[in-house]
Parts: sequence; structure tokens; C-alpha cells
Amino acid sequence: MNGQPATPTELEINLIERVNVGDIVTRAADLYPDRAAFVDGDRRTDYATLERQVNRLGSALLSLGLKHQDVVGVMARNCTEMMVAYFACARAGLICAPVNLGLRPDEIAWCLNDAKAKVLFAEQALGEMATQVLAVEMPALEHRFWIGGDGEDGFDALLDRGSEAPLEAMVGDRDIVQLLYTSGTTANPKGVLTSHLAVTMAGLSNAIAHHTGPGLVTYVALPLFHCAMLNSITMPVMVLGGTVVLAKGFEPHEAARLFDEHGVQLMVLLPMMYGLLLTDPGLKSRTFPSMKRAMYAMAPMPEERLHQIHAMFPNADVVLGSGQTEFTPATCVQRPEHQWSKSATWGTATAMTRVAVMDEEGRLLPRGETGELVYRGPQVMSGYLNQPEVSRQSLRHGWFHSGDVAHIDEDGAIWFKDRFKDVIKTGGENVASIEVERCLMEHPEVAEAAVVGAPHPRWGEAITAVVVRAPGGTVDEAALLEHCRAHLAGFKVPKGIVFVDAFPRTGTGKIQKHVIRGELERFYER
Amino acid sequence: MNGQPATPTELEINLIERVNVGDIVTRAADLYPDRAAFVDGDRRTDYATLERQVNRLGSALLSLGLKHQDVVGVMARNCTEMMVAYFACARAGLICAPVNLGLRPDEIAWCLNDAKAKVLFAEQALGEMATQVLAVEMPALEHRFWIGGDGEDGFDALLDRGSEAPLEAMVGDRDIVQLLYTSGTTANPKGVLTSHLAVTMAGLSNAIAHHTGPGLVTYVALPLFHCAMLNSITMPVMVLGGTVVLAKGFEPHEAARLFDEHGVQLMVLLPMMYGLLLTDPGLKSRTFPSMKRAMYAMAPMPEERLHQIHAMFPNADVVLGSGQTEFTPATCVQRPEHQWSKSATWGTATAMTRVAVMDEEGRLLPRGETGELVYRGPQVMSGYLNQPEVSRQSLRHGWFHSGDVAHIDEDGAIWFKDRFKDVIKTGGENVASIEVERCLMEHPEVAEAAVVGAPHPRWGEAITAVVVRAPGGTVDEAALLEHCRAHLAGFKVPKGIVFVDAFPRTGTGKIQKHVIRGELERFYER
Repeated sequence: MNGQPATPTELEINLIERVNVGDIVTRAADLYPDRAAFVDGDRRTDYATLERQVNRLGSALLSLGLKHQDVVGVMARNCTEMMVAYFACARAGLICAPVNLGLRPDEIAWCLNDAKAKVLFAEQALGEMATQVLAVEMPALEHRFWIGGDGEDGFDALLDRGSEAPLEAMVGDRDIVQLLYTSGTTANPKGVLTSHLAVTMAGLSNAIAHHTGPGLVTYVALPLFHCAMLNSITMPVMVLGGTVVLAKGFEPHEAARLFDEHGVQLMVLLPMMYGLLLTDPGLKSRTFPSMKRAMYAMAPMPEERLHQIHAMFPNADVVLGSGQTEFTPATCVQRPEHQWSKSATWGTATAMTRVAVMDEEGRLLPRGETGELVYRGPQVMSGYLNQPEVSRQSLRHGWFHSGDVAHIDEDGAIWFKDRFKDVIKTGGENVASIEVERCLMEHPEVAEAAVVGAPHPRWGEAITAVVVRAPGGTVDEAALLEHCRAHLAGFKVPKGIVFVDAFPRTGTGKIQKHVIRGELERFYER
Repeated sequence: MNGQPATPTELEINLIERVNVGDIVTRAADLYPDRAAFVDGDRRTDYATLERQVNRLGSALLSLGLKHQDVVGVMARNCTEMMVAYFACARAGLICAPVNLGLRPDEIAWCLNDAKAKVLFAEQALGEMATQVLAVEMPALEHRFWIGGDGEDGFDALLDRGSEAPLEAMVGDRDIVQLLYTSGTTANPKGVLTSHLAVTMAGLSNAIAHHTGPGLVTYVALPLFHCAMLNSITMPVMVLGGTVVLAKGFEPHEAARLFDEHGVQLMVLLPMMYGLLLTDPGLKSRTFPSMKRAMYAMAPMPEERLHQIHAMFPNADVVLGSGQTEFTPATCVQRPEHQWSKSATWGTATAMTRVAVMDEEGRLLPRGETGELVYRGPQVMSGYLNQPEVSRQSLRHGWFHSGDVAHIDEDGAIWFKDRFKDVIKTGGENVASIEVERCLMEHPEVAEAAVVGAPHPRWGEAITAVVVRAPGGTVDEAALLEHCRAHLAGFKVPKGIVFVDAFPRTGTGKIQKHVIRGELERFYER
């Protein structure tokens, strides 16, 4: 060397040692510049191009005057632009907030206001829905760009303003990279803040959990605004320099075409989507040998259905993964050796997650005992935005509290029992609402049932059922109570039954038990 | 919940979200309590036992009065105790410094003094060598415990003093977990400080690089005091809940027995060790089908040797990994698809490492051009102990400088050329000393050659060769120079040749070129 080099600056040291989600793109572009990062309809974006776009959009965003950790909202169906925006925010030290299109427009606007988003990328093709969101006053919002728009306020126009030079901003490991709102089965949406470190750990540990290898091809039809797709699928595939085939929603024939055309090896679908593939007359005898791993989310499936899926994907492990937004999200994935023997479980802990069961006093329980699932690990959220009290509550006793009730067996597999708040405390006994719901739903004239605890002067909480009758059903309260008495311990039999035509539901279709509880607040004061 | 829970303490939040190397054991003990973590001769330590021992030793160390980030030295051949000490330090927030047994006793004591080690675990069976180290004054050292000692000052006695309760101390992601001394081919040993985050990232990214799966069984005969074994093999295997079969050095028949008995799937050996396995009359027709991955370190091997290794390990990928202590250490590993086509390369970048080539002015060079290998990634060391200036130097221009000269090809594979300092600048030309050394060693009467630049009034540096003749060889300077002129460009021919009986070497057998350079400092002033 000629002369003494300058002492490395703080930024130079940050660039060397940091954990930054945006650097995933740079590393893949180094090794696989020509490989497709995204296939999105007719568009194919290779890693070298993606790297340039990330630099351009990131520098363009900073040139708008955004400051470190400002929020950029994205309102779009799955598309390349959403991921360019995500990585550009990561590299620029901004926070990306993809909003949940399952929410109502006023709820979306509420989230964007809660986040104080300064920029919004909105998909022009969303039409009326986007218009309704933008009609709500959003005082913090300074800029709106249309994805798919070709004017001055289009995404591409902003991209053109940026520089392709490597964007090198100082970003800490635990700075926030994403803000996702949970759909809220028990309360209003909560904004979950997640760090670069958490997303990177999720990427690496899911890459291990997927048991696959480099250059994976995955199919992403479920929305990228859910962290299952964003963090458990997209990141681990991109960490390995693989390809993400994007779809705007699930359609069986299009899915089959993409499986064949791209040799898809990994995917996550909902059980209902497997049903559509398996029962489609044009597809049901098809096989897709490229698939190595067909995952499903949240709800176990019956063994017969698993046999059908294995027949369609003869080279695939068919496994369930579970988790929650607050843990980025995969906490547990079924091990391949459990795909048959423990198909009803939620899987076992991923590489960087500790899973345990806790009682209400904060004591960890031994294997086999039932209590609340609690987690530790660097994939944990950094907190809920603007909700310090709820954030603290969720971290009590030195563990993250999932709100799920389960036990862990001798192999570390998780057997889900109920949502924690669905444990009804009645007359000194704890009753899992799911057990009562299952009993009710076994009655042939019941389509669906939701069971909650309603305040009661004698019982504390009284088990109370809300029931939707099956089409043509005429069963009444007395007959249903008799059915319950025949199948349940006495203290588990509802004290009251209400018949309704439909349940209140979230944007993503989950029953809003907190709404039901609210409606039954004074039920026993009648 | 009854009442409001207390706000989580700083320690509770740390326990939830931190990255701590010691937590690797806890997670594996959750899932695989009965599986062997270590097999060490007749001793088998399962993960549940290891977890208890780590808690006990960690709490016992803290009870000695050690403070956060104090240093604990370990002087031992591969054994379970070394790893218990390592994880106990991790969990207690202490720094573990396993010393290099290839160094001379006074050098080991120098390292322990440089580290200000307060506790030393020493293997009693090292005998005279341990006695010589302990005879050196070590003012900071407060406690010494014998591994294998059965008295009050034995490792086991200290273990018995501790508590099995989970040891929960506050430890940061970037707190230091290990201190390893490089063997120093160009200067005195340098103490490399490595963080919890770096070791964990190395564990996860090497687990991916190994292309294997959970519950791996590995064989570790190379010393654990090198980070290749400690970080690139042991951690990724333990992250997956696998088993580490320990050996105190390599012996072909014992190795074969362990492969068979434990179904070893992964290992790293030096090329010389493969040679011993392949040429042993009792083993050379054997095969070991359990092996999935037979790695080798640092030096490429000829294709014929690779064929022989493949024949012995018919189900294994045979790949080279490279790196350095300062990067924890694996920066590059050959991809399986390159094991034949690019067997002469150092591999391609691991999942969290960026590798580039830089010129002397700090400019990154395009693919194909030769310069110094530089790295970025969270596996980077936190610095050299007590050497802030060298630490800063190593991080100049926003990259970690490897000191290796190479180019990167279109697939991202690294083609090593030379150590940076072995580029001799002579008469305006740069000459890689390795090229001149290879030419000299092609002469049948030359056993070994080391080429350096010696200061010269006309040439700046004059290419100067130090040569060990082959047994019975009589070649002289004039004949060797003629040989060089026949095979090298004129400016690459040495200006002088010195014949010696042996080279100065480090404890691990590397030629100490800095010693040779020192001896030739005034060669051209004669």
C-alpha cells in the first residue's frame, strides 16, 4: 500500500459487518447475475437487473427527502415492484409496509395512518378500491406512485430518477425493515415491527427447514403482504439464489401451467387450494414431479387428502408449517419423518426458535402438559407499533406469548389445542372452546359453531355457543343442549345457545370472536 | 392473567431476542435430549447432559468472580470438556480462548498473557508441555483447572460446584464469544475476536453449504482450536442437532473404525490425511458409504487423487472449503457441481459472505481480473485484540482484506493466485512468488523452494529464492538459474538463490516467509 489508509468510517464498518435484508439481493447478483429472481406473468427479472432496480429505487426514495426508518406503504397484489420496493427500503434504511388487501379500504387507510407512511406505492389496477383508500385523509402521506402507471407519478418514473450505483446507507442489524398488520381476530389490527436480523434469521433457518438446496424455484400465489410468503418462502429461496414465480392469487390451471413451465420445487398452499387442484376435472390425474416440497399452512389435513396430494406430487414432502407474524413467522415446521405419523401436529421448532409451554404464572411446563405456547429466538418482532403496553404484555416472563394453547410431545412436535383466550373459565374449571365447538359441529344440522365465555354472575364466565344451522336445518337450543350433554362433561355444556345466519369475520375470513364476545357482554343480564 | 404483569426486564428481552452461541445447545436439547452431541472415545454426551453441564460450568465460572467478557483459556486436544467450556463461556458472557498446541510453550503463554486470561483449563495428559506453559509468569491468571484431573483443581470438581438451573446472563449479539490466535505466517500471532452473531451466522450458512440435513454425524480429528473445526463443522452440525465424533488427531485405522461405527456423514481432512487413508494397505480397498460429504481444506488436489477419494467414499461430494480465522472462517466452499469442473478453485461465496477482488487503490475489479480478495459479511471478526492499527488496516475501503490474490470467474468461483505479500514488485513488474516457486520445484533435484522479494538498489525488490535440495541432489545456483530462464519470462528469473537445509516454520508447519524476508534484508548489500 502507498501511504497509510484512512481509518474506516462508521459506514464502512457497517457495510462490512451488518445484517441487511437488502444485501441478500447483492450476494445473489454476485453469484447468479443471469438467474431469474422473479417471474411475474410475462416479465422475468434476473438478479443483476434486480440489484440495479433496488439501487435505483432506494436512491430515488432517499432523494424524496425520506429519513432513516421512515415508512413506505405498498398496496398491491403480488408483483415484482412490491419486492423491488421492499429491498430498496431495506438498503436505504426505510421501513416497508405492504398492506393487507383483505382489509376494508378504511382499515387500510387506518393502517397507513397508524404507520405514518410518507410514500405509498399503489397498484393502479386495484381501481375503485385504491381510490377509496386514497380518499381517506392521510396527513403524513407525501407521495403516491402508481404501480402500473406510466405517468410522472408512476413507479417506473420514480425508478428512472434513481442511480444504479451501489446504495450504501448505514443500517443497523436491529433497525426495522418491515411493518405488517395482523388481521386481528381479537382486536384492531396491530402493526408488527420486524428487524433486518429477524428477517435474515428467518431466511437462513427456513432455507434449512426446507431441506432443499440452492437455486430453488418456488411458486407464490398467496399474498406477499403476509409474512408467510414474504419471510418463510421468498427470503429462504432468495438466500439460495433461487427463483420466485409470482401469481396474483391462486387458479388451479394457471398453477399447473407454472409448475410445468418453471419446474416449481417448493410451494405453500392453503388446504382449500389443494382441494381445488385435486378435484379439478382437468387436473386430478396429473402429476408434477418437479415439486420437492408441498407445504400447507395452519390447518392440518386428513390423511386421505394427504394421500391424494402425494399422488399428485410424487417426489414431494408434504408438510405443515405454522407460526405468526410476530415471529417472522415460521416457528414450527413438520419434519419430513413426521409428515405421516404426526400430520396433525404443527411441526417442531425451526433452527433458531425455542418453543415451550407455559402456565399462567409464568412457569415452563414439562413435555406433555398443556399450556400457552411461548417462543424465544432472534426472529421475534421488535414490538407492536404505537402499542407499548401490548408489546410488553406479549414479552412477559421472558418469552414471547403466542396466545395458542398446545402441548409438546416427546419428539418436540406441537399439538395445538386452542387459542389461549378461547379457554373459558367457568365455575373453577377451564374449558377449551374448541372442544365444545367440535361437539356442536358433529350435530348434522349444525354448519358452524363459535363458543365463547360470556360474563355470568354465578359461573364467572358461562360457556355460550353461537351457531349457524346447516341448510335446511331446524335444530333448536333444547335439542342441541341434549346433544352436548350426551357427549361432553357436564361443566362443558353451554349455558346458552344463540342462532345466527353468519359470523362476523376478518378480511381474511377468520371468525372475530372478540366481536361475538362484545355482543354477548350482557347476555346473562337479560 | 391475574393482575398486570411486570414490564419485561432488559435481561428478559435479551433472553428472548438475542443471538447467543450457547443457545444452540439449549435448542438441540429441547428437540433431541437423548441424541449424542459428542462421542469422545468411550464417552458419549447427549444433548440433555450437555445442557446441564454447560449450565453448571457457566455458573461455576461466574462464581469464581469472572466478569462479563473476561477470558477463559483452554489448552487441550479435542475433548468434550473443551466444548463444554466453550458453550459455558458463551452462556455466561465470557470469552473462550482455545490455544493452538502447535505453538511453542512460550508462544502459548504469550497468547494467554496477551488475552489476559483469568482462568485456564489445561489437559493434564499434555504433561511436560503444559508444565512449561504454566512455568511462564501469567499475571492475569487467577485459576487453573486440569482437564482429566481428579483433584480439587480438576475440571470435574469445578463442574460439580455449579448449578443445573438455566444460566441466564445478559449477552449481546456482538459480544465476543471466542478468541483464536492466527498462526502468523507474516508476523506474531494475532488474537482474532469473534462475536456470537458471527459464529451463529457461520453455523447457519455452513449448514446450508453442507447440503446435508438434520441429525448429521461428523468426524472431527483436526484440532478444535482452529476455527475450521470449531465454526465451520461443529456449529453447523450442532445447529441441526447432530453428533460430533471427536478424535485427538488423525490415525487412518481409528478413523475408519469411527466412520463405520457411527455412520459418519461429513468430515474435513487435509489432503495429506486422505493420502494416508488411500495408501494404507489395510484400508485402500475399503469403502465408506455413509459419508455424504468429504471436504478438504485450503489446498486443491490433483484429479487422480479426487477419483481415489470418490472410490473410497462413493456417496460423497468431495469439495474444498477455504477461509480464514478472521471470517469464522468459511468464506468459500466448492459447490457440488464444481467438484470436478472447478476442483482447482477455492469454491464460491457462502450464503452470508460477499467476495470481491480489489486493486491497491481500493477499487473493485470486474470478474476475471486479478487482485486482492476482499470480503463483507456478518461473519467478520470484531477485530484483533490489542492491535487497533492492524484491525483498521484490515478493514480499509469498506471491505475486509484477506491478503490473498485471486480472480473470480463467471460462476463466482475463486482462483487463488498468491498471498498478497508474496507479490514481488521488481523493476516495475509484479511477480507472483508462487509462479517462480512452482518453476523451481519442477527441477528434479529441488525438494522445496520459497521465493521472496529482497530489497535491491536497482530492482526495488529482487526476486530471491531459498531452496532445499532433494535428497542426493547437487544442483547449484547456475544450473537452477538456467532452468528458470528456460521456463520463465526474464523478469521472473531470480536474481539470487540461497540453499538451506530446512525452512523456518510456524507451529502448524507453514513456511515463515517473514523470517526469510528478515534474513535476506541485507542480502544485496553484501
